[in-house]
Amino acid sequence: MTLNIALFGAGRIGKVHAASIKSDPRAQLVAVTDVMAQAAQALAAEHGIEVMTEDEILADASIDAILIAASTNTHADLIERGIAAGKAVFCEKPIDLDLQRALKVRASVAASGKPVMMGFNRRFDPNFATLKAAFDAGEIGKGELLSVTSYDPAPPPVSYIKVSGGLFRDMMIHDFDMCCWLFGLPAKVTATGSCLVDPAIGEAGDVDTAVVILHYADGRLATIRNSRRAVFGYDQRLELLGSDGMLSVENQLETTVRKSTTAGVSSAKPQLFFLERYMRAYETEWAAFLDALTNGTAMPATVQDGVNALALAEAANISLKEGRTVTLTAEMTGGAP
Amino acid sequence: MTLNIALFGAGRIGKVHAASIKSDPRAQLVAVTDVMAQAAQALAAEHGIEVMTEDEILADASIDAILIAASTNTHADLIERGIAAGKAVFCEKPIDLDLQRALKVRASVAASGKPVMMGFNRRFDPNFATLKAAFDAGEIGKGELLSVTSYDPAPPPVSYIKVSGGLFRDMMIHDFDMCCWLFGLPAKVTATGSCLVDPAIGEAGDVDTAVVILHYADGRLATIRNSRRAVFGYDQRLELLGSDGMLSVENQLETTVRKSTTAGVSSAKPQLFFLERYMRAYETEWAAFLDALTNGTAMPATVQDGVNALALAEAANISLKEGRTVTLTAEMTGGAP
Amino acid sequence: MTLNIALFGAGRIGKVHAASIKSDPRAQLVAVTDVMAQAAQALAAEHGIEVMTEDEILADASIDAILIAASTNTHADLIERGIAAGKAVFCEKPIDLDLQRALKVRASVAASGKPVMMGFNRRFDPNFATLKAAFDAGEIGKGELLSVTSYDPAPPPVSYIKVSGGLFRDMMIHDFDMCCWLFGLPAKVTATGSCLVDPAIGEAGDVDTAVVILHYADGRLATIRNSRRAVFGYDQRLELLGSDGMLSVENQLETTVRKSTTAGVSSAKPQLFFLERYMRAYETEWAAFLDALTNGTAMPATVQDGVNALALAEAANISLKEGRTVTLTAEMTGGAP
Amino acid sequence: MTLNIALFGAGRIGKVHAASIKSDPRAQLVAVTDVMAQAAQALAAEHGIEVMTEDEILADASIDAILIAASTNTHADLIERGIAAGKAVFCEKPIDLDLQRALKVRASVAASGKPVMMGFNRRFDPNFATLKAAFDAGEIGKGELLSVTSYDPAPPPVSYIKVSGGLFRDMMIHDFDMCCWLFGLPAKVTATGSCLVDPAIGEAGDVDTAVVILHYADGRLATIRNSRRAVFGYDQRLELLGSDGMLSVENQLETTVRKSTTAGVSSAKPQLFFLERYMRAYETEWAAFLDALTNGTAMPATVQDGVNALALAEAANISLKEGRTVTLTAEMTGGAP
Repeated sequence: MTLNIALFGAGRIGKVHAASIKSDPRAQLVAVTDVMAQAAQALAAEHGIEVMTEDEILADASIDAILIAASTNTHADLIERGIAAGKAVFCEKPIDLDLQRALKVRASVAASGKPVMMGFNRRFDPNFATLKAAFDAGEIGKGELLSVTSYDPAPPPVSYIKVSGGLFRDMMIHDFDMCCWLFGLPAKVTATGSCLVDPAIGEAGDVDTAVVILHYADGRLATIRNSRRAVFGYDQRLELLGSDGMLSVENQLETTVRKSTTAGVSSAKPQLFFLERYMRAYETEWAAFLDALTNGTAMPATVQDGVNALALAEAANISLKEGRTVTLTAEMTGGAP
Repeated sequence: MTLNIALFGAGRIGKVHAASIKSDPRAQLVAVTDVMAQAAQALAAEHGIEVMTEDEILADASIDAILIAASTNTHADLIERGIAAGKAVFCEKPIDLDLQRALKVRASVAASGKPVMMGFNRRFDPNFATLKAAFDAGEIGKGELLSVTSYDPAPPPVSYIKVSGGLFRDMMIHDFDMCCWLFGLPAKVTATGSCLVDPAIGEAGDVDTAVVILHYADGRLATIRNSRRAVFGYDQRLELLGSDGMLSVENQLETTVRKSTTAGVSSAKPQLFFLERYMRAYETEWAAFLDALTNGTAMPATVQDGVNALALAEAANISLKEGRTVTLTAEMTGGAP
Repeated sequence: MTLNIALFGAGRIGKVHAASIKSDPRAQLVAVTDVMAQAAQALAAEHGIEVMTEDEILADASIDAILIAASTNTHADLIERGIAAGKAVFCEKPIDLDLQRALKVRASVAASGKPVMMGFNRRFDPNFATLKAAFDAGEIGKGELLSVTSYDPAPPPVSYIKVSGGLFRDMMIHDFDMCCWLFGLPAKVTATGSCLVDPAIGEAGDVDTAVVILHYADGRLATIRNSRRAVFGYDQRLELLGSDGMLSVENQLETTVRKSTTAGVSSAKPQLFFLERYMRAYETEWAAFLDALTNGTAMPATVQDGVNALALAEAANISLKEGRTVTLTAEMTGGAP
Repeated sequence: MTLNIALFGAGRIGKVHAASIKSDPRAQLVAVTDVMAQAAQALAAEHGIEVMTEDEILADASIDAILIAASTNTHADLIERGIAAGKAVFCEKPIDLDLQRALKVRASVAASGKPVMMGFNRRFDPNFATLKAAFDAGEIGKGELLSVTSYDPAPPPVSYIKVSGGLFRDMMIHDFDMCCWLFGLPAKVTATGSCLVDPAIGEAGDVDTAVVILHYADGRLATIRNSRRAVFGYDQRLELLGSDGMLSVENQLETTVRKSTTAGVSSAKPQLFFLERYMRAYETEWAAFLDALTNGTAMPATVQDGVNALALAEAANISLKEGRTVTLTAEMTGGAP
């Protein structure tokens, strides 16, 4: 049986998901909706599907699951409306910029028992997934020190920064999830940050360069480094030091070409940005959603995972503002883990 | 206007091409044919297209182009029948195992004026293409010494070896084409080869390990190393030494994960085989065919290119058999370059 | 004119310095002293020099400079006695484990006007020196985020830990100096640390795994990661993200051999420990001392540098103990910078 | 007991050897001789030793061994005079440019029973030595295809080319030895070569770019690539494909610094030339000579090894001149192996 999927959001990331849906025979895209009518129509035309309204989609009993790739401020409502309509939900991160709102979604989803997956794409990157498998298999013993490097090639427009929820909720949220995924939920958060890239970002009340330390109850440590600008490309690396060795993920380069001249040996830059770097992750996460759905198994990235990452962002914001280490409370995470 | 494409051959490589056709809006796959009826039906079902006979395809005026991915012994006939039917042709390499037959195809194609492209996929690999662009832009000055490394992960069954035309025509033909693509047609060929991997390959009259030197009229040299077995994966590298530097293409690895333990630092193996390693090349070569077709420009890999590579394989076979350097004649290449 | 040098300390590091002295024609080793008479005699025999007492050395007017490679607790006294005796001094780091004592030495040296160099060997490592030269030349624009990775292959005996002054003063002091060398003196220090490697280290009141963040007045950030155990070898790396790019120093490996098998591609481990990794740095720092001495120019690593690194270690200890960010005061650094 | 060593030749390579002798307590340099009196005096002054004539050295019974680092045309005579005088001999490669003369030296040495070692330094490079140890330990199974890359950074003056004996005897001789060391003596040689770097080299009757294939009796193959010019530095690599994997030696780079900018990721060049690249090899080969001498064990690089490499160079010259594959005869190697 093929699952019928409706897509909310026909933008850049919606198109990526539409292609993923197309490539897996277990599902078919049947409808798309977007506040930008033109975008919805273009995507519908390309895929030979219908443009529908949100209400029509939710009311359509033939639609099994919805994929939410609309703007962040719609996520919480759409998840709740989707599960209320009896549909499985795949939602791009974050649940919401507001932790309290996210906690309510968490409660709704828990009460509904419906399958909901958060699109933490990095978990499905073959590099990070291979590292996690090796770590879980004990190849480097007990984990001790985790280090995530995550630099964007260039800052987004300041207009975006203003509605982004800030670096911790908009950008570092992925890195928080990576730490939770590999090490679990930390006990405390220490955040530092500066505005070094563009003064306009600082004027908008945000930082563009930040280092966060996560303290685990058993003494393990994790660090996350973020910058809104690495002119050489999208820098996405990870290192995990353990008692018996170290695992690391290096950047994927645009090509494997090397040039040796009197100036030295030069190689390609990292792949430019998330669509290139995480293309395979986007494909794989969709397959993982269908796997869990068709097998009735647990989702590989849950609403609780979304809450956890958001709670860490919240803690980091408090830490940065108040210049102190912040202890994560059960209230912040809904009692987890 | 969308071009209607018919696919000859529903095997492994035919499926890859079917996916490429699907992903480019300028063309649509409308029919498939295969001597294995079941294979044709499966592919047809997946793509929602018709199974037709070869004759039906060639007689169907609505079909603009054919893509030949059937077994090698059908290539020459199908190219000639395709152009005779007024169709554009994309054909997997080689034209034929017999150089004389290939030369006849060359003449037929030249007479017809129809666009025919040979599927020398490596030319479209982003790594090799980037290297060539840098070389053509003069970034390492004048080319002097070209070295192609091309090892398969494991030998094919001996049953395949027996009908393959031998290592030079079956495997090194790609590397001959790379040399022609970068350096043009050489003047002389010196071939060496041994049976080291599997005695059965030697009993079948073939070699499994070979080194060939191409001598250019102006003194440039190229070497090609082939082995039917590199247990660590598909080893596809190239080095080009020039007067002002060197360009090289390294292997693409399965992941960028590294593990550091007391045993050393280990990283991933090269991507296993041609479908993985050259996936992007397969996609790109099809786009290049459509580019040339829709723009009416020259094909980026021609029947003459196919003849040249085959002539080098022929010369290598003679060199190996007679233990001498063989001079390439105009007769062998149809007068080219 | 050849400078006459006396060596204090005939242990492992003393032997390294003796070899450096031997290899530079501008100086000659004339005497050695050590509380372990046997060690002094062995070194003296190998170099054909005399064993003298400390007093004899300091009283000998023919001795131009002393090289202090004795145990840490002797450094402060020997520096002060050396300059009082009119000698130039090269002293292994640290000045002293006690910041107040170090500040007194700083005052004594300033008052004496005698040339004193601290052996911060990493500044002379060709890799770090090349990075600094490129950074100072503006090759990556303005510095923003500095990251130092410094893991030892294995922890020292707990007996050593107990007298070491703790991880920040014993091990991270080198990394503090690297940050000061590249970025200057920071404004604030946030330190975290855990005992993960060996419980006995924790029982001795120390940590074995630590992450420190240095906050600069202008918003720049630096992080230092330390572990007493990286089983794969001595991990010494550095990354400097700037407005126009990034500079990094990778590990030096034992060999450049790579092995590709079905298990993957493996390469050598980092050079095992400081004597191997920084051999060239030890040679170069001695030459730099002689350069400054013979040219009358400023020492490339001063007592003030030693005080600064120690003040950062002190601040890190307070930060770790009190769980807060510590602001560096003029009192802690003697008013510097 | 310390061995007394006399050095023949106070040039660049003589100085390197003098330093090696100095660093090993089992031997001491006692005399130097050179046709350039000034060079001999400078080296003697630096080391506090005597300048002697060749005759004085050979007549001095207190001298245990001679180290021949004088010009190539003196080697054969000095080896023979050295063993006749009862001395152990360490001689830089080659024995002589003339194979017949080398064969006579071989006979003289064999008759004398005196220990003579040829300075094939690459055997003692830690990278190549590690590769050989792994290969001999069976880590990649049976060897099949060996590839040596050896490019100089820049051609020597044409005046040197004229007396060098040609590329095969002057430059590729090292690579011939590497092949013999790893794979033993081949059965046949196919050589190609061109003058691409500097027409003056061609006018002097030599080539500057060459590819040679060595054919082993059991089918194994080896290739050697030489160029007199790789503008990016001294390119010294080796690859050995075996039945169970591949071992390779990569270049040693000047530093481990990497710079990532909008232009790409650049790293350092290979170490410039043989003195830098093989510094540790020079030290180790001398230690190996002393090991063999003091233990009475076989020399790790013999006069027979020197003859073998020279015979391969001779065969390559014939192959290049006559455009055919040349079979190595027992006469060419003195009956070896």
